[in-house]
Amino acid sequence: MTEPTISLNALAAPLVDALVADAARLRLGLERLDNGCLVVDGGIDVPGGLEAGRRIAQICLGGLGRVSLRGGLAVGGPLGDWPLGVEVSTTDPVLACLGSQYAGWGLSHGEGKGAFQALGSGPARALTGKEPLFAELGYRDHCERAVLVLEVDRRPPAPLVEKIARDCGIAPDGLTLILTPTRSLAGTVQIVARVLEVALHKAHTLGFDLHAIRDGFGSAPLPPPAPDFVTAMGRTNDAILFAGQVQLFVTGSDAAAQDLAERLPSGASRDYGRPFAEVFKAYNYDFFQIDPLLFSPARIRVTALDSGRTFSAGRIDAALLAASFGCAA
Amino acid sequence: MTEPTISLNALAAPLVDALVADAARLRLGLERLDNGCLVVDGGIDVPGGLEAGRRIAQICLGGLGRVSLRGGLAVGGPLGDWPLGVEVSTTDPVLACLGSQYAGWGLSHGEGKGAFQALGSGPARALTGKEPLFAELGYRDHCERAVLVLEVDRRPPAPLVEKIARDCGIAPDGLTLILTPTRSLAGTVQIVARVLEVALHKAHTLGFDLHAIRDGFGSAPLPPPAPDFVTAMGRTNDAILFAGQVQLFVTGSDAAAQDLAERLPSGASRDYGRPFAEVFKAYNYDFFQIDPLLFSPARIRVTALDSGRTFSAGRIDAALLAASFGCAA
Amino acid sequence: MTEPTISLNALAAPLVDALVADAARLRLGLERLDNGCLVVDGGIDVPGGLEAGRRIAQICLGGLGRVSLRGGLAVGGPLGDWPLGVEVSTTDPVLACLGSQYAGWGLSHGEGKGAFQALGSGPARALTGKEPLFAELGYRDHCERAVLVLEVDRRPPAPLVEKIARDCGIAPDGLTLILTPTRSLAGTVQIVARVLEVALHKAHTLGFDLHAIRDGFGSAPLPPPAPDFVTAMGRTNDAILFAGQVQLFVTGSDAAAQDLAERLPSGASRDYGRPFAEVFKAYNYDFFQIDPLLFSPARIRVTALDSGRTFSAGRIDAALLAASFGCAA
Repeated sequence: MTEPTISLNALAAPLVDALVADAARLRLGLERLDNGCLVVDGGIDVPGGLEAGRRIAQICLGGLGRVSLRGGLAVGGPLGDWPLGVEVSTTDPVLACLGSQYAGWGLSHGEGKGAFQALGSGPARALTGKEPLFAELGYRDHCERAVLVLEVDRRPPAPLVEKIARDCGIAPDGLTLILTPTRSLAGTVQIVARVLEVALHKAHTLGFDLHAIRDGFGSAPLPPPAPDFVTAMGRTNDAILFAGQVQLFVTGSDAAAQDLAERLPSGASRDYGRPFAEVFKAYNYDFFQIDPLLFSPARIRVTALDSGRTFSAGRIDAALLAASFGCAA
Repeated sequence: MTEPTISLNALAAPLVDALVADAARLRLGLERLDNGCLVVDGGIDVPGGLEAGRRIAQICLGGLGRVSLRGGLAVGGPLGDWPLGVEVSTTDPVLACLGSQYAGWGLSHGEGKGAFQALGSGPARALTGKEPLFAELGYRDHCERAVLVLEVDRRPPAPLVEKIARDCGIAPDGLTLILTPTRSLAGTVQIVARVLEVALHKAHTLGFDLHAIRDGFGSAPLPPPAPDFVTAMGRTNDAILFAGQVQLFVTGSDAAAQDLAERLPSGASRDYGRPFAEVFKAYNYDFFQIDPLLFSPARIRVTALDSGRTFSAGRIDAALLAASFGCAA
Repeated sequence: MTEPTISLNALAAPLVDALVADAARLRLGLERLDNGCLVVDGGIDVPGGLEAGRRIAQICLGGLGRVSLRGGLAVGGPLGDWPLGVEVSTTDPVLACLGSQYAGWGLSHGEGKGAFQALGSGPARALTGKEPLFAELGYRDHCERAVLVLEVDRRPPAPLVEKIARDCGIAPDGLTLILTPTRSLAGTVQIVARVLEVALHKAHTLGFDLHAIRDGFGSAPLPPPAPDFVTAMGRTNDAILFAGQVQLFVTGSDAAAQDLAERLPSGASRDYGRPFAEVFKAYNYDFFQIDPLLFSPARIRVTALDSGRTFSAGRIDAALLAASFGCAA
């Protein structure tokens, strides 16, 4: 492994500083813990908002990505033109999405009903070197600052914060934690902005060589948040599963590109066919029983750069999207 | 009223400074009055342009908003895909749109035919505390700089400039006035960028609690400017009335959200049904006879955050849009 | 000719510096030649990418333009919604596109099979004053720095670099050359981002007064790159010829605006009707036999600012686009 020329945490640091400086206008909460860690409340006790979510999503991409809010997505069916969506591009999709944005750091503290559990995403993951994914990426970050995004609706306990800093190899006052509840506007944006990441993660699960992925672009409608966690989580997943679109640009053979295109869409999963909240309930809320290959965009195009051919598969499912999004009239 | 943590004029100041620094490339005129006030000509004696209008619109939103030019809006009907439109998002829609962007400051000087009359919009309004709206918002700004946007095609008389500065509680050399004729490209952009603001203003007129509005997003096609004032004004209104789309995210009951959605679209007004210039003419050019509830977007979605349900009403009217926009072939 | 108030090269310089500073994350190569010239590899020995291309396109527009990546363009036909495209706006289209972005500087070194030939585009052109176009524009730049974009897949020979600097009237260490192969992702973006420029250039060829063009906006789908030069070049042209859309805002008579609208679309050319690579081959790869009026967007709207009328002509040709883009399934 060569010394990285890119530090995800160093690239994200100015974006974090700007988020903190703009906290009032973004309607975010700021709290400095006793140990020096800065906690940004993205929607627990404060309104937050769409723009806050957009900026948090860009932090989560390690300063390597651009997330845009977009109007007027044609999804067809009962919803017609859906008024709002997100688009995601990066300077380097594998490093931005898998090296940073992927929620790969399992965190827990305590036991039983009051236990705190969360999945951490963002640049801080790259400091720990604990996930096997980083060995495959051939990447590890070194930085005195770290930022981690937690999709939670309460503050992490102090000992867990200490542990995160320790695992990152930094002092707690170099750590920023950004908390975005699933049911919040900011949380909704930052989850749906993972449309490109879920495509890359599934490609990895399918055994596709990550080094063959040169670039990508993703878009998905922004679902209405829901106050109930399962419904909210379901809608953010469904936005990607039923109407997410991704184009990947890959090197290698046409056969590999075509195979990737055909296996990548959500519709290729055995669990495809109803809103995610229903699937989750049918498995008695046991996340690990769900087909991991379900988590992927609806429609995929894969361009094979070595031949110039493009392979498409999957489709937008407007009826399922409408069933998920809870729209009247 | 608590001391504001946000100063709209302070947030807009760096955007104003950048506009002035980039005046040559934005094709804007700059004039420093004897009293020190800086006047930016957005299209009276200079070309200005779409990008200038986009940046002026962001200043008008008090540094809390993002305005994007967008291509390829599907409006259907005779126009098919309209090639250009604007999209508006904010960090805080009520403060950005009603506390800043709304044209709520009536200005006049002189009498009779040569009288100068204008509606002022932008951050400076929040310094005067004169409009009752600010008491409702619980907001008042304090800043040594101020910026006001005037939709006019001639320069305001010096005594009026003095009065504006005095009402803002600042020295005239802290004041910037941006002049954008209705018929100009910059003016067209900055008016149509009010698509979200008109939805919020009508919500307020309908008695909907502004504090219940958490976020929003708006889009509208950009009409072709017209050399005639009434035609130009008519088209900018029609872009919003016939093809503007807004999504609001609100707290409170489903009943209130549904009622808002149903009453908010322009089609709910008694004066809906023909291009605005015709309506205006039919009322003998008496603006105050027009139903104030006419001024609103064509299509509305209201998401009730407390239930997660979304209510939709209104529709894009491609035929009326085409009748207004003066398109041949 | 008056002294310019705008220096395209000075405006582009901070964008070039930022590109260089971000080279690692943009996956660009940097090479400082012995004579001090900085060469940026946009996709010869490095991956580069879409975002790199977007930023290079903005440099090519002399700091006067904005290029956005956009998803979900409705092109219809076999391709349906094409997942990715570019949109282009400027602060001043004629200066940005013709004074800077147009590939008007013919460069060559050596003879026979190993000869180096390229067309230079970007701000540096405006320093030489050699192209007759600049006399018509009434513009000439003076700056100690220069940036030139070359659509090539190998490095220019040292003597040619020296000549470029000499023609610009600068020392070689003030020169930055950006190399973007046609087959690269960055190259594809920066070529298709010329959709507005080709409309302006054809308007000029048709004899339309450039000073009458006040503003414009363009969009086009982003084609899949192809490893073969002729195919890659063909697709980038076809993206514009078959699905590029431009709106121009012009002063002058309705008759002139209507005439421009009718003559401007690619469909008005005698060579329209098949993918560009086939046209090129049919002329035995002799570029100069191709109708120069072929190079223009598919669909045009021209708004006559003096009357407010808008004239439309041309259409998106989804079938030809699909034939060009090499899409399976």
